[in-house]
Amino acid sequence: MEPENETKAEQTQEQEQVVNPWEVSAKGKIDYDKLIDKFGCQRLDQFFVDRVFRLTGRTPHIFLRRNVFFAHRDFNEILDAYERGEKFYLYTGRGPSSEALHLGHLVPFMFTKYLQEAFKVPLVIQLTDDEKCMWKNLTVEESKRLARENAKDIIACGFDISRTFIFSDFDYVGGAFYENMVKVAKCVTYNKVVGIFGFTGEDHIGKISFPPVQAVPSFPSSFPHLFPGQDKLRCLIPCAIDQDPYFRMTRDVAPRLGYNKPALIESLFFPALQGETGKMSASDANSAIYVTDSKNEIKNKVNRYAFSGGQDSIEKHRQLGANLEVDIPFKYLSFFLEDDDELEHIRKEYGSGRMLTGEIKKRLIDVLTDIVEKHREARAKVTDEMVDAFMAVRPLPNMFN
Amino acid sequence: MEPENETKAEQTQEQEQVVNPWEVSAKGKIDYDKLIDKFGCQRLDQFFVDRVFRLTGRTPHIFLRRNVFFAHRDFNEILDAYERGEKFYLYTGRGPSSEALHLGHLVPFMFTKYLQEAFKVPLVIQLTDDEKCMWKNLTVEESKRLARENAKDIIACGFDISRTFIFSDFDYVGGAFYENMVKVAKCVTYNKVVGIFGFTGEDHIGKISFPPVQAVPSFPSSFPHLFPGQDKLRCLIPCAIDQDPYFRMTRDVAPRLGYNKPALIESLFFPALQGETGKMSASDANSAIYVTDSKNEIKNKVNRYAFSGGQDSIEKHRQLGANLEVDIPFKYLSFFLEDDDELEHIRKEYGSGRMLTGEIKKRLIDVLTDIVEKHREARAKVTDEMVDAFMAVRPLPNMFN
Repeated sequence: MEPENETKAEQTQEQEQVVNPWEVSAKGKIDYDKLIDKFGCQRLDQFFVDRVFRLTGRTPHIFLRRNVFFAHRDFNEILDAYERGEKFYLYTGRGPSSEALHLGHLVPFMFTKYLQEAFKVPLVIQLTDDEKCMWKNLTVEESKRLARENAKDIIACGFDISRTFIFSDFDYVGGAFYENMVKVAKCVTYNKVVGIFGFTGEDHIGKISFPPVQAVPSFPSSFPHLFPGQDKLRCLIPCAIDQDPYFRMTRDVAPRLGYNKPALIESLFFPALQGETGKMSASDANSAIYVTDSKNEIKNKVNRYAFSGGQDSIEKHRQLGANLEVDIPFKYLSFFLEDDDELEHIRKEYGSGRMLTGEIKKRLIDVLTDIVEKHREARAKVTDEMVDAFMAVRPLPNMFN
Repeated sequence: MEPENETKAEQTQEQEQVVNPWEVSAKGKIDYDKLIDKFGCQRLDQFFVDRVFRLTGRTPHIFLRRNVFFAHRDFNEILDAYERGEKFYLYTGRGPSSEALHLGHLVPFMFTKYLQEAFKVPLVIQLTDDEKCMWKNLTVEESKRLARENAKDIIACGFDISRTFIFSDFDYVGGAFYENMVKVAKCVTYNKVVGIFGFTGEDHIGKISFPPVQAVPSFPSSFPHLFPGQDKLRCLIPCAIDQDPYFRMTRDVAPRLGYNKPALIESLFFPALQGETGKMSASDANSAIYVTDSKNEIKNKVNRYAFSGGQDSIEKHRQLGANLEVDIPFKYLSFFLEDDDELEHIRKEYGSGRMLTGEIKKRLIDVLTDIVEKHREARAKVTDEMVDAFMAVRPLPNMFN
């Protein structure tokens, strides 16, 4: 799975945009409404936020309240089933292409952890080391190593080991999982994957072979140690919207194989620090906050690189206020500042010019430092034994309790 | 692997021919010389027969003496290595698409058993149940069942359990084997497989994904329980020549992954009973001798359907003799009659018209009945426990002794 909330450029003028699992680019700002139309998913509106609140009896996650998860497929059916007392399971993943994760990478995991807690459901996390080996031209060994390193960051997000199975494709493909890969592959023509993913004749056949690998965790029978005889169990997939093509394909195939279509709940892309000014560059460490960044690095990155919607001079700023539409500190706070009232306060104060850029950046630095330090502490406690334990192919007897 | 000596039509007039792993057809007789040129393999001449005799100290197998195995790639290098005291392993396989095998299906296994005995080398046998599931539209369960049934016929050929590992793809794909599949897939573009196998855009992606599955048993690291740390071990593949495209692809990729190119020793197709008259039909049980046929069925099939090169009347036959080029009883005897002198005698007597069609057919019926009855007896002794034992993922400590 990939790029799962890579920080993406959002530019102001809007023109053509390309969004697929390997490329997110737009000549202007990403038009999410257009994306919803093109992909054929639904907007996740306030109705769902309220309904989740009612059903779980707890305040919906900040990413739900703030519309970071902004689109869905059949999320209503998952909630209907849950209300009837039926079970479901969660599936998310990551393509382990880098050593350290940045904050955008954590978005789906933070949200998935909340869903797991709120709904008390099992979770499978796929690490697509095979995909990264093929796309990024990493060796098998390096991809597997990165998968384990990334698993530590994922575990550090606080998943419940009694409900969570993490697997790497290189370790887990085989048996029932491979049988399902073959069944899916039989249902999808080359022309179809070209239409969905835009492959060309010069792409290697590993790329063409891969979509079934990401499809089949959507089917409970791919996990005979978890869901034996529960072929009708529903699956909910929290992911960034660039993963939608995989699951459009999967939803097309699912009923032909006797499964429910997996439901999706899909997020925006996490913007680069440079925000509106251009594309994030993977090779530019200054375009994102990494979970390994020190307090000082975070401070410097935010102060130096976070694109500001504030005005050039204090006088002009006091007079016109900040342009919140393009302001990265405000956007980042809307992802990570838990306190709704405080965010509203900042919106008014900063938007009207009473709060200065330096002040909102200071607040953001505090918030990010807190998140990163907590993550670092949690990750330091993740041992190799814990990784083995999360990745052991084992039943999870109390996963629905 | 498939179709491994499906009985194929040989027609007299020679025009266009199509030979790939899923289709063998020619407007005339198959032109094997043209095939060798087109595929780029080498003819296996008397030099090799003599060399195998010298190296193994035993009479070369009837399929070698009679040029049933008529082409090769790098067989000389295997023999060079063997002469230097180096080891190699054998790899062959079957696509389990039918319940009962016919005699053509047994050809590569009879020959492989001889190679295993003569060279004292280990053998891996791949049952491509995944391929059959995708090409023949069988269910996963049915493909797996046929794989086990076919394994019984294969075991009945007399393989040495201390040197033989039989595996089904649905059971065995995963781990090191899957890692190698990904490595191969990375090296092969879609355009390349279209060039080799003739896939079209309407083919499902399972077909496009499959060639690496048949490629990787050529690499010792796909069997870490057999060949740990022996990445330079050579592999020799006995197969029918229609499998050559898979291994051309494999040989292309092997050096890029640090392996020796697998060597090949390739057979003719086993002709249908109707021989020269047209294509064998899989749905026509009368076009082949099955290992389940009774003595009476064999007798009737040979007498009624085996295409004869004999003349219409006894007078004409005595005068002109039989046309051995098209005579199926003679062709079948050249595959299965062990006694070289007797075959030479028949060639002269029947070819000159002194021997009648009824006589050669009677001799063929005896020979085939003997083979089939022996096979049936051997197969009846193959228990499910033996199948499990051959298919167990286990080391073979004495496989080279």
